[in-house]
Amino acid sequence: MTIPETLQEIMKQDGVVAIATLGSEGPHLVNTWNSYLRVSEGKLLIPAGYLHKTEANVAHNPEVLITLGSSKVKGLHGPGAGFLIKGKAEFLFSGPEFDLLKEKFSWLRAALVVTPTEITQTW
Amino acid sequence: MTIPETLQEIMKQDGVVAIATLGSEGPHLVNTWNSYLRVSEGKLLIPAGYLHKTEANVAHNPEVLITLGSSKVKGLHGPGAGFLIKGKAEFLFSGPEFDLLKEKFSWLRAALVVTPTEITQTW
Repeated sequence: MTIPETLQEIMKQDGVVAIATLGSEGPHLVNTWNSYLRVSEGKLLIPAGYLHKTEANVAHNPEVLITLGSSKVKGLHGPGAGFLIKGKAEFLFSGPEFDLLKEKFSWLRAALVVTPTEITQTW
Repeated sequence: MTIPETLQEIMKQDGVVAIATLGSEGPHLVNTWNSYLRVSEGKLLIPAGYLHKTEANVAHNPEVLITLGSSKVKGLHGPGAGFLIKGKAEFLFSGPEFDLLKEKFSWLRAALVVTPTEITQTW
């Protein structure tokens, strides 16, 4: 799936990404920075330092929801743009996605790779 | 529950809040702005313009997870602070919480009032 230009603009801005997964105890929500996201071949790559609970949840249910936005990017209704991404996630500990992130984020323990199934610009 | 000073600092910064609820089809994730949050008597007040899906989910399961953060606020490990809030949510269409938000956010249709059960500074 093509990652929209506006979403890639948001990734360049300061801001907080939310990543939701579903575990046995209900939804789990964690954050990373907009600027930590990378795009490769239609996938979102996120360096995982911790994210242990997210990893455990994804092992049982790979569905993730991700939101990010920025007031600095022009959106659907003027200033401010945001996206909701539904996708399938996996944690990779080697390979090209891991290596791509490792170059920039030497501290990562894994690459959280999200294959989007639906990308919605919400504002 | 006391709303920490650092969390209130984050609310003054530009940024995106994520609100997760659980529906029959799985987790649902929506956003609002840090600057839209208000605090009253230990509760978080969020003006709801849309949030129809969140409202429907909360009617069945009031548990919500909320994350927000800012790179501009000093956190646990230097620059950048963020919080995870677990709480019980309700939508109110009148009353003091609604009126408090209505003064600033004339467009709101409801006040999403969250009573925190757990506030965790995550970074």
